[in-house]
Formats: sequence, C-alpha cells, structure tokens
Amino acid sequence: MSIETLSEQSEKAYALLKEDANKIVKLIEVQMTNLTMPQCPLYEEVLDTQMFGLSREIDFAIRLKLVSEDDGKLILNELERRLSALHDATMRAKEANG
Amino acid sequence: MSIETLSEQSEKAYALLKEDANKIVKLIEVQMTNLTMPQCPLYEEVLDTQMFGLSREIDFAIRLKLVSEDDGKLILNELERRLSALHDATMRAKEANG
Repeated sequence: MSIETLSEQSEKAYALLKEDANKIVKLIEVQMTNLTMPQCPLYEEVLDTQMFGLSREIDFAIRLKLVSEDDGKLILNELERRLSALHDATMRAKEANG
Repeated sequence: MSIETLSEQSEKAYALLKEDANKIVKLIEVQMTNLTMPQCPLYEEVLDTQMFGLSREIDFAIRLKLVSEDDGKLILNELERRLSALHDATMRAKEANG
C-alpha cells in the first residue's frame, strides 16, 4: 500500500473531523455569548447529539486506521473541556439571575 | 494515487458500514420478536440514535470518497424499510392487544 496515498487520506479524514469539531465549537460559542438571554432548553440536547455524531465519525476513522486513537481522543477531549466550561458558565449565570 | 489502495480502503469502509447497519438490523429483529411483550418505550429512541450515528458515518465515508452516495443511500433505505415494517407491526400489535 502506498504510504503517500494513505497519508493523503488520513490528512483529509483529520481535516473533515476538525471541520465538524469546529461546527460544535461555534455552537458552544453562540451559547456562551447568549448566557444572559432566555435559555434555550434544547441546546444541551443539540450539543449532545452533535457530540455523539462526531464521536461516531471519529470511531469510524480510527477503525479505518485513518486517524490514531490519540488524535481522535484529543479532538473529543478539547470539545468536552469547552462543553464543561459552558456548563459552568450557565450555572453561574443562573445563580446570578436567580 | 494508487487505484488498488483506494479500492481496498473503500471495501473496508463499506464492510464497516454494513457491519454497523447489521447491528441495527439485529436491534430491529429483537424488537420484532418481542412485539407481544411489554413495550419498551425507549426502543424507538435507541433505534433513532443508532440510525443517526450510522448516517453520520456514511456521510463521512461519502465525503472521503470511500463510498458512493448511491451505496450509502442503499444502506440507509434498506434500514428505513425495516424500521417502517417494525413500526407497522408495533401498531398492529397494539390494536390487537388494545
């Protein structure tokens, strides 16, 4: 198997995963800037669904050996860190307004 | 790009997608044979979630040009046909027991 071809496919796979991860980052950022607005109760469900979809894509790419397990975990961990920060900020905003 | 390499990766991707589709088929079959048992209200949600996950994997494989759009659609259409048959059978069982 040509190493170059495999590496091209891997780069493409990684770029697509980062693209999808960035869409979730955007969703988180929108929610972050709207903390003081009336809460949309569905945002957690939307984010959960998107995270699940991305984790399935990453798992698929790992099974195809296009992305390493470590790289896949890094993408998800970074998003989980942001989600956790959003969760904390939401709690603080509730307390401040409550 | 070596045609052989790309075709190997495509075959592997298609095999993985069929493997995941078959897991959903198994879930549908289990539900089909348990129609007369007390209904589990979560089965529709579980199946929906699994279908969403698979559709994201298929979309990812199509974007990587590992699977054609037609092949991807065939896998999902076949599952949707089975889900629809399960839905009909569930309705009939409810009417018969109701």
